[in-house]
Parts: sequence; structure tokens; C-alpha cells
Amino acid sequence: MSQSKRPIGKIIRELREKSKLSQEQLGERAGIHRTYVSQLERGVKSPTLTILEQIAEALSIKASTIVRMTEE
Amino acid sequence: MSQSKRPIGKIIRELREKSKLSQEQLGERAGIHRTYVSQLERGVKSPTLTILEQIAEALSIKASTIVRMTEE
Repeated sequence: MSQSKRPIGKIIRELREKSKLSQEQLGERAGIHRTYVSQLERGVKSPTLTILEQIAEALSIKASTIVRMTEE
Repeated sequence: MSQSKRPIGKIIRELREKSKLSQEQLGERAGIHRTYVSQLERGVKSPTLTILEQIAEALSIKASTIVRMTEE
């Protein structure tokens, strides 16, 4: 039923790696714990919009752009 | 620190009312409880991306479009 074609976690991982950041570094920038970054990337957790916005800001990208990437 | 300019809850409420749906009807379509729709609209809770996608689908709109509306 989900509209997502691509898992958000994989996209977060791709964007993080493209930014040459470790999970710990992204977590620090986004104000979330490294283990939570790991859970999001593995699809164990679905990020809230608030968390997604924090991650997007840490990656200098819009949250809507990340969501759009899941729909492509 | 959030990139959101407009609260997601207000946007969900606007889109729901534009679709002439009650909170209960939107909840039924999205597979979430009416009281959770109410909490989201009031900003008590931040939706997960999964929930946002279910709401978007129930409103025949893309999740990324709803997120983009928060950034405008």
C-alpha cells in the first residue's frame, strides 16, 4: 500500500556516503544517535518527519527531495 | 533547526478538509485511528514517513508533495 518504490533507508545511506560522512558524523550533525542512523538505514525504523528534516538539514538537502527520491 | 516553515499537521488538516473527509474517514482510508489523525493535525505527534505515505495515498497526493508544502 505504500507509495515508496525505494526504501528511505537506502537513500539516506547513499546520500550520507556521497557526503563522505560516517553514521556517527551524520548523527552528530543531525542531533540523533549513531545507532538510530544505523536503524534508519537498515529499514528497522521509519523516520518521523522531524527526524527526516534533521537528517536533510545535516545533508544540506530538502526533506521533500529525499521523500521524492523514494517515489522515483 | 527544522526546515519546516508550515506545520505538517495544518497541511494535513487543510488537505483533508479540501477532500471533504472527516478525521474518521481519513483514518479509515489511511488505516490509522481517528484519534491519531487528530493528534497529527494538532501537532501533538510527528508522523513517520510510513504514516505520511498512507495519509498521502488516502488523499491521492504524493508524500513528497505534502512535505514540500511544509517548506514553502
